[in-house]
Amino acid sequence: MTSEFTYQLKGQDGSARRGTITTARGTIQTPAFMPVGTAATVKGMLPETVRQTGAEILLGNTYHLMLRPGAELVAKLGGLHKFMNWSGPILTDSGGFQVMSLSKLRKITEEGVSFQSHIDGSRYNLTPERSMEIQALLGSDIQMVFDECTPHPATHEQAETSMELSMRWAKRSKAAFEKYHAPGQAAFGIVQGSVYEDLRRRSIEALTDLDFHGIAVGGLAVGEGQDVMFEVLDFTAPYLPKEKPRYLMGVGTPLDLLGAVERGIDMFDCVMPTRSGRHGQAFTFDGKMNLKNAQYKDDPEPLDPTSTCPAMRDYSKAYLHHLVRTGELLASMLISWANIHFYQTLMKQMRQAIEEQRFQSYAADFRARYQSK
Amino acid sequence: MTSEFTYQLKGQDGSARRGTITTARGTIQTPAFMPVGTAATVKGMLPETVRQTGAEILLGNTYHLMLRPGAELVAKLGGLHKFMNWSGPILTDSGGFQVMSLSKLRKITEEGVSFQSHIDGSRYNLTPERSMEIQALLGSDIQMVFDECTPHPATHEQAETSMELSMRWAKRSKAAFEKYHAPGQAAFGIVQGSVYEDLRRRSIEALTDLDFHGIAVGGLAVGEGQDVMFEVLDFTAPYLPKEKPRYLMGVGTPLDLLGAVERGIDMFDCVMPTRSGRHGQAFTFDGKMNLKNAQYKDDPEPLDPTSTCPAMRDYSKAYLHHLVRTGELLASMLISWANIHFYQTLMKQMRQAIEEQRFQSYAADFRARYQSK
Repeated sequence: MTSEFTYQLKGQDGSARRGTITTARGTIQTPAFMPVGTAATVKGMLPETVRQTGAEILLGNTYHLMLRPGAELVAKLGGLHKFMNWSGPILTDSGGFQVMSLSKLRKITEEGVSFQSHIDGSRYNLTPERSMEIQALLGSDIQMVFDECTPHPATHEQAETSMELSMRWAKRSKAAFEKYHAPGQAAFGIVQGSVYEDLRRRSIEALTDLDFHGIAVGGLAVGEGQDVMFEVLDFTAPYLPKEKPRYLMGVGTPLDLLGAVERGIDMFDCVMPTRSGRHGQAFTFDGKMNLKNAQYKDDPEPLDPTSTCPAMRDYSKAYLHHLVRTGELLASMLISWANIHFYQTLMKQMRQAIEEQRFQSYAADFRARYQSK
Repeated sequence: MTSEFTYQLKGQDGSARRGTITTARGTIQTPAFMPVGTAATVKGMLPETVRQTGAEILLGNTYHLMLRPGAELVAKLGGLHKFMNWSGPILTDSGGFQVMSLSKLRKITEEGVSFQSHIDGSRYNLTPERSMEIQALLGSDIQMVFDECTPHPATHEQAETSMELSMRWAKRSKAAFEKYHAPGQAAFGIVQGSVYEDLRRRSIEALTDLDFHGIAVGGLAVGEGQDVMFEVLDFTAPYLPKEKPRYLMGVGTPLDLLGAVERGIDMFDCVMPTRSGRHGQAFTFDGKMNLKNAQYKDDPEPLDPTSTCPAMRDYSKAYLHHLVRTGELLASMLISWANIHFYQTLMKQMRQAIEEQRFQSYAADFRARYQSK
């Protein structure tokens, strides 16, 4: 754990960026998609299977892990990597977003958030300092500042107040990171400011002063719709420092990823591939398929006969339909696997297209085929 | 699919038998344990993972598969092996047992059983002829005769009536097998007769006349207890033909397997390793562990650090406890995997002990360690 966290911008095609992040636990080719391992497991997948899809980094959720099994216990057991048997890099969020969306009886003050666990009602406090302490206990390679995810819609005044709180928390998070973190670990700031260009710009300026290892764009994918999200990225991305990785949190659909990479984003995470997988929905280059539909009942074709992924290649849609209909665990396992593989393949193809200066035509071809059915 | 089904008895240690079954889809070293793939999937496991545990043959359930997705559909899709992506041998049961334990509004006549599906209430008939036709449509390598599993307890008169019906059905099943089966496929008879030696003996005589490829002992593991089961095996096994494989249906716990191998049984199937796995219970050489128990909360040790199975070796009990407590799919996946691996390892060790003429000492050592905690 001694090598430094670095980001190298290797090339650009328009605004789309091709880069490499180096961490003590391995390198990450960007643009990158991080499968979500909420409770120290990517739901329905073995860690080695996740690795086989091409994933180089996972995301863990501070909120879930602080409740179960608890950060101190994970630290005692050797840290999150050892606990979940994943030796590659891990990014942890700060818990801020989940506290707002999952917990009960929340109270936000300047100090932080006090809340009740959605699981058993027990009370917790989460502050910038505690969030960074938890992330250091978990031992993640990239740690996110504790912020308030501004709800959508928000007036300019609400968004400003919220953003300014988040920037004060970012400063405290950075100080706590300096206190708690182990060598080689990195901290990312989070831009807030809702849909307002002036606020996004002021937020970036505040974060730039704090000299984070990377910058996330927060407060998107919260119901504003793809058009608004892209608009915010259009006016936000140009202000982001070029020499640092840019992470769009909680995004998204394949078309979201395509549009965001096009606008200069380097990192993504989303539960969609695994959550959809558990609901029988598969992503393929021919679009999204609901395998529960009767049309697949006797379909002898696999999801993608040309794929290197066994889940996409070795099982017919009829079989997957049967597994979904009978509620078998293997349905969630295979379709989640296929979806994570699809997401990784999409990222790989985008990286290659950027390298070869043909991102626009790649994106146009992808959209045409994906939306054709 | 042209090689003949054969059984070769390679050696004996006391009554314990070491043999090899050859089928068109591969050989099976006996004594063998068959993981159960009820609805065309061993619950929570990929077929290649099942194979990696050492399993050489799976069991499929005619009752479940005839209801969903339907035998004709499986046949249209290329058969059960292709459908579930398992290239090794498969044994199918006849549906007789599940019809009695799962279906609704059953009516048994000389002809067969009419019943309502436990899933959607639709009506079906299952006869010896239809059961064998379904098994041929599924394309299983070993097909079981349709019988009535005599309930326990049963009077001598009840057991006799039931056994005689099963023997008439066995004759019809054999005739139907001859009509429907593909080259290389085998049919097994099933001995009934409850706990009565004279009935078991008469049942074996009836089956011997029909010249099946193997013989199963049915009507056990239905609530009679291990002592009674072993007693029935003690007086039944000596009458079984030595040159054919012997299959004890639906058994059992590790100690059941040990005692039944000791009494000359060659094949087993049971849902216990996967069902227990889904309930957080792990089998190890140190006994059964309920990983939900608080005692494992901070236990850094894996189930078995010396195992070749990743599920037993690479994850701490604390992690498995966490997964069980949080209801994660990975809990079922890892513990089912560990349990199937444990069962296969137990069979492998028993085979080796028989080969080396030390079965009694192996069994004594296993029992002492397994029951020590």
